[in-house]
Amino acid sequence: MTTTNASRRSADEVAQTVLNKLASEGIETAFDRHDKQGTRCRFGELGVCCRICDMGPCRINPLGKEPRRGICGANADTVAARQLIRQVAAGVAAHSDHGHDVVKTLKLAAKGEAQGYSIKDPQRLLSLAKEWGVKTEGRSNNEIALEMADLALQEFNRQEGEIRYPSLRAPEATLKNWRQRDLIPVGVEHEIVETLHRTHEGVDADYVNLIMHGLRTSMGDGWAGAMLATDFGDILFGSPKPVRSQVNLGVLKYDEVNIVVHGHEPTLSEMVVAASRDKDLLDLAATKGAKGIMVGGICCTANEILMRQGAPVVGNFLHQELALATGAVDVILVDVQCIMPALVEHAEKFHTKVITTSKKARIPGA
Amino acid sequence: MTTTNASRRSADEVAQTVLNKLASEGIETAFDRHDKQGTRCRFGELGVCCRICDMGPCRINPLGKEPRRGICGANADTVAARQLIRQVAAGVAAHSDHGHDVVKTLKLAAKGEAQGYSIKDPQRLLSLAKEWGVKTEGRSNNEIALEMADLALQEFNRQEGEIRYPSLRAPEATLKNWRQRDLIPVGVEHEIVETLHRTHEGVDADYVNLIMHGLRTSMGDGWAGAMLATDFGDILFGSPKPVRSQVNLGVLKYDEVNIVVHGHEPTLSEMVVAASRDKDLLDLAATKGAKGIMVGGICCTANEILMRQGAPVVGNFLHQELALATGAVDVILVDVQCIMPALVEHAEKFHTKVITTSKKARIPGA
Repeated sequence: MTTTNASRRSADEVAQTVLNKLASEGIETAFDRHDKQGTRCRFGELGVCCRICDMGPCRINPLGKEPRRGICGANADTVAARQLIRQVAAGVAAHSDHGHDVVKTLKLAAKGEAQGYSIKDPQRLLSLAKEWGVKTEGRSNNEIALEMADLALQEFNRQEGEIRYPSLRAPEATLKNWRQRDLIPVGVEHEIVETLHRTHEGVDADYVNLIMHGLRTSMGDGWAGAMLATDFGDILFGSPKPVRSQVNLGVLKYDEVNIVVHGHEPTLSEMVVAASRDKDLLDLAATKGAKGIMVGGICCTANEILMRQGAPVVGNFLHQELALATGAVDVILVDVQCIMPALVEHAEKFHTKVITTSKKARIPGA
Repeated sequence: MTTTNASRRSADEVAQTVLNKLASEGIETAFDRHDKQGTRCRFGELGVCCRICDMGPCRINPLGKEPRRGICGANADTVAARQLIRQVAAGVAAHSDHGHDVVKTLKLAAKGEAQGYSIKDPQRLLSLAKEWGVKTEGRSNNEIALEMADLALQEFNRQEGEIRYPSLRAPEATLKNWRQRDLIPVGVEHEIVETLHRTHEGVDADYVNLIMHGLRTSMGDGWAGAMLATDFGDILFGSPKPVRSQVNLGVLKYDEVNIVVHGHEPTLSEMVVAASRDKDLLDLAATKGAKGIMVGGICCTANEILMRQGAPVVGNFLHQELALATGAVDVILVDVQCIMPALVEHAEKFHTKVITTSKKARIPGA
């Protein structure tokens, strides 16, 4: 890579400085790995490569010449639709798990079994309970939260009926439209599982039927997982208000302990930010010569702690390797999603510790 | 294709005859589509092509040369493990759905809401109830079956704890081993969904952790879905006894109505076999000049009706196009799994009607 590549790679001048430094030292990043991949496989790019069963891999000629069909007879429409809705299902599985985790945390908090977590916005709880038709009179917030959490958990594993929010929040005409087209999920998880079944070898071959099921599955995140993540996240961590903060690699401090939280879920990062403001920890940092503890976020985690606590944003997905390359990051603490496995090998070149925190997401060497 | 290919394609002489006929008429089958695919993509075959996110498709050089990693930094181990356990999850989703369907059918039957279905083996119900600790004294079979079905449905959507069968049926040492390695699923669907989350971009990168989760997910079929399919299938359709029957394309009758049932689940095919023995329908067939109604099976469906009703087996997965090519099949009735989308175009060349029966599995033109 030549240094002139930096401006093609990022519009952010601070990122360009780090990219140039890395280039001069011959240290690889995602940008270099992108270049090393070279020209992409056209079949893969067009979605006409099928690896669902092991008779293949089969490839369909997108120009209408042979091979027009996979071994089973699936054509380009079927192959592409199956690939697309499996991506949808994986996205829904990943993103809705965020909501699932927040709901489970609120449940534990309501039972007094989640140290450090409590109901931060009781008004939000009460208004949501009212919307859901949950009794509030004469009950403690924890009692209400417990019932709400149990109801919310059913959004994930219900096997028949409808998820809750469409009938509460969608405009009437939209709701009618969705019901006519059978687009409302019975529950988040069941539709994901059905996507995998339908896309298996020899099951659904009708691309319209496949895409419609993909739409139904996607509603499981938009109208259950993500909506629950917002509502229950606000109850648990407080509803966001406009805040002013700072963004880019420049938020890393020369004379403080720099901790970067990266990943997706607020449950861990909120606690880390709170801990960074703890007097005992600040005193401990001072004894090591640090003037403070800087906690900044990368990716979705950044938005969570920005909107609720005004914590600075270190960068986006493509900044994760660059942040470490500043040499200023002491710890990068990750949970799930968008964590480049490359981080571990990359961190070895600097002094950063990579700490994984979820059993669902480990990286060898972290 | 030359006619000498037929003996390479099938050891079954009857199948060879049909293959030769098809070749002489220039009609394509899965064998020809296999040949048309030519040399397979090596990256796909080795599992080192990643299409999980859209930065790719990324390919890892399996010989340790560049590119050693995908754009995110995933190496060959991570890419292959993710691909493999997604295949596991899809297999579990598909196969366990068979059990799910049988349990739901028993529940409807117990409530008197499934016309034609009833408890065929009450002894099997009572012994299973005893194993599960469900009260049987003073209760009707339908009451017991209803409670059993509700308990069985929880095997699919439970979010914590353990599926039921390992602690009831696994040897103690095995059970201990599984528990130590955290290999017992909480429920069938949740582990499938977690597989999709873990294998998403930037989540689990540790191939050991990934494979262990794949094993846990697979237990959801072996020790819940498939086991329930057997137990509840026996209750609903009767426990199989040794039967004598016939196998291969020769079971199709020259002078009868030939109906082939193909797919996976017994709920439909059992009823079709029963209907084929109905006097009114036999009389109707006779008015059209047919001496009877032959119902034969292909694939898993064939085994279901063979073991319980002694119905003949037309063939396996690769016989589906050949059966139609005999010209003797009036209807091929399919549900889910292993149904070649090619059937519709293929059937147009003969007089066979293709009838799909599941909203989860449609084929354009059927």
